[in-house]
Amino acid sequence: MPNSSSIQGAPSAQASAKIPLGSVGVVHTQFLHFDEPLPLASGHTLSSYDLAIETYGTLNADASNAVLICHALNASHHVAGISAENPDDIGWWDNMVGPGKPVDTNVFFVIGVNNLGSCFGSTGPASIRPETGKPWGAAFPVLTVEDWVSAQARVADRLGIKRFAAVMGGSLGGMQALSWAITLPERVAHCVVVASTPRLSAQNIGFNEVARRAIITDPEFHGGDYYAHNTVPRHGLSVARMIGHITYLSDDDMAEKFGRTQREPAANGAYHYGYGVEFEVESYLRYQGEKFSKYFDANTYLLITRALDYFDPAKKTGGDFARAIAPAQADFLLVSFTTDWRFPPERSREIVQALLKNGQPATYAEIDAPHGHDAFLLDDARYHSLMRAYFLRIAATLDVPQALRASSEVRP
Amino acid sequence: MPNSSSIQGAPSAQASAKIPLGSVGVVHTQFLHFDEPLPLASGHTLSSYDLAIETYGTLNADASNAVLICHALNASHHVAGISAENPDDIGWWDNMVGPGKPVDTNVFFVIGVNNLGSCFGSTGPASIRPETGKPWGAAFPVLTVEDWVSAQARVADRLGIKRFAAVMGGSLGGMQALSWAITLPERVAHCVVVASTPRLSAQNIGFNEVARRAIITDPEFHGGDYYAHNTVPRHGLSVARMIGHITYLSDDDMAEKFGRTQREPAANGAYHYGYGVEFEVESYLRYQGEKFSKYFDANTYLLITRALDYFDPAKKTGGDFARAIAPAQADFLLVSFTTDWRFPPERSREIVQALLKNGQPATYAEIDAPHGHDAFLLDDARYHSLMRAYFLRIAATLDVPQALRASSEVRP
Repeated sequence: MPNSSSIQGAPSAQASAKIPLGSVGVVHTQFLHFDEPLPLASGHTLSSYDLAIETYGTLNADASNAVLICHALNASHHVAGISAENPDDIGWWDNMVGPGKPVDTNVFFVIGVNNLGSCFGSTGPASIRPETGKPWGAAFPVLTVEDWVSAQARVADRLGIKRFAAVMGGSLGGMQALSWAITLPERVAHCVVVASTPRLSAQNIGFNEVARRAIITDPEFHGGDYYAHNTVPRHGLSVARMIGHITYLSDDDMAEKFGRTQREPAANGAYHYGYGVEFEVESYLRYQGEKFSKYFDANTYLLITRALDYFDPAKKTGGDFARAIAPAQADFLLVSFTTDWRFPPERSREIVQALLKNGQPATYAEIDAPHGHDAFLLDDARYHSLMRAYFLRIAATLDVPQALRASSEVRP
Repeated sequence: MPNSSSIQGAPSAQASAKIPLGSVGVVHTQFLHFDEPLPLASGHTLSSYDLAIETYGTLNADASNAVLICHALNASHHVAGISAENPDDIGWWDNMVGPGKPVDTNVFFVIGVNNLGSCFGSTGPASIRPETGKPWGAAFPVLTVEDWVSAQARVADRLGIKRFAAVMGGSLGGMQALSWAITLPERVAHCVVVASTPRLSAQNIGFNEVARRAIITDPEFHGGDYYAHNTVPRHGLSVARMIGHITYLSDDDMAEKFGRTQREPAANGAYHYGYGVEFEVESYLRYQGEKFSKYFDANTYLLITRALDYFDPAKKTGGDFARAIAPAQADFLLVSFTTDWRFPPERSREIVQALLKNGQPATYAEIDAPHGHDAFLLDDARYHSLMRAYFLRIAATLDVPQALRASSEVRP
């Protein structure tokens, strides 16, 4: 077990001047190397791998205050604070995690892990394969949510955490939290699942498949070995991201944000009668697609969308999700958002009904928010109050010094 | 005005043996050539053009029984019956149009016109440009719904039809019907608008834009002049179609049709852990995309999605749709389907509310059907009963020989 001071991201004196109130400050990515082979659902074994992580707060003496935050498709281990590598890079759930925030880093020791197969520091398709000295490319094994849980469990082992106070995540992150509670029940005290689902629908899989086809049929994809050609399938990846982006927003939200506003109308508001950018929504989607295609790895996109498709804990129990989740020992919090049409409230209610059927402890909130699936990332007062209250309840069960715990009782 | 016998598709003696009950029989495409220049919304002018049409039934003496059927994105003038060119090609609205069917060809003279810019016989981007002797390609002008109405009006002139008993269509076809009622009010007695909208939403435009990006960024697109390279952007077009297809079906319908059924599972129902076809829904979408990319012209896809985006009669009236539709003299029938999330019932209700506000005659039905946007093409009993009743009401206003009219009073 490492010295706890080495696994917290303490802000440096220089950087602290521009750290916003409630921020965990400047954080450094830590890299953990694992040499023990990792058997995968596919039958393959990864002989060794690295995982990029960040941590915030301090692990308490009995290692009972750890919270694992699992990320969704395009996010990373950089959950909160300011990246030491890039001061403009604020963690993707910075509004949720920090001193005095709903997941209070004065109380909890919070861990973000970049998933295996991703492209932000953990071993993935773009990494050098030890056996060949070249990027894995198409040879990188397909992973599942369960594989990620196995890899994350080794991070917990390394940090000396036997049982998490909470495992939490939104969307695909919520699936990982569910999978933790099911596959490693004794290691999860609370399971927080936001804007998620017990399994993808045919429509969800359909959108993923279209995105994958856009990538795979891009001639620059080169069968997944585009690294060797010094190129990337940027057009395909851009189209994939544009499709995804539409499904993250609600119809109303898009209407509110963009409506039919023209980008740069011709004289008297006329159309240009062409296929360039005519409407604001086109400009926005193109920008999102192009930006994404510059920083995200196309093979990772394939891999993560496939892990989404494959997630289905009830596959082993003949479709009976209640039976699948029965082994869990956690207390559950489920949250959904009314305008989320990617993983709508019905999907969360399925999970709740399964838990209730089994007599397992569950709290459920359906938040009336206009922002579609993306709502889980946004700072909505009712949503955050609920999360705060839930984590205060968890905090009350912990052996945390009074000095630390006090801050969570004061609203920032 | 042509001889009426030349503008009906009478079945040949040979083919009649396999004509199903209620079918208009074997029909031949007719080509109408127009030499009078057509001014377009874009400011361009088309100096001459051809339109492919089909007609069913017989025009009565005072030319008062004509019904114009406008088609949606990927359909054509082949509305009903069996194509003389291909006996497997049944018209896209054959369940709606025919002897004894809701739009009864024993009573009505029905016309289908392939839209200008489409790829089923009418002049479009793949046609030879007279000035150059080469395909139009990227030089073909962008068209609008209003341009189609102008072109269709010339078909009516050619056939001697001053006023249609009804102009009708679903989806984009419904927009053309609306546009007819607004721009040529004295020529439309009844306007039937099914599963349509007064304008596209930001989400609708977003999906169209992603589809266009998939086509335009396909290297085989060659800036729209792929004909000269003897190729087609089939991957981009296939992705475009897959996106479209998802939006035509309801989430529930896809769940019902495909669920998470695996296509050819590995041993014991296991996954294959790859990016080939794993689920039925993937197989279906890939098939639809590939089939489409073999028969549909990519430039036409761009053109028609743009016409969809641009449709907005209220653009000229400061966003006030009631004011935009006020000139219409037609009696309106509006139909929407509960699970249509492409053009949901709210959009049809906007049209109805505008008509009611103006005191214009309107009938509205919201059909509880599970099939999403595609429902407008399907044979739903409540939907078809309604259409039948509405067209019987229209028939009662016409001077149609009793012998013909009788058949519409007997259910087939």
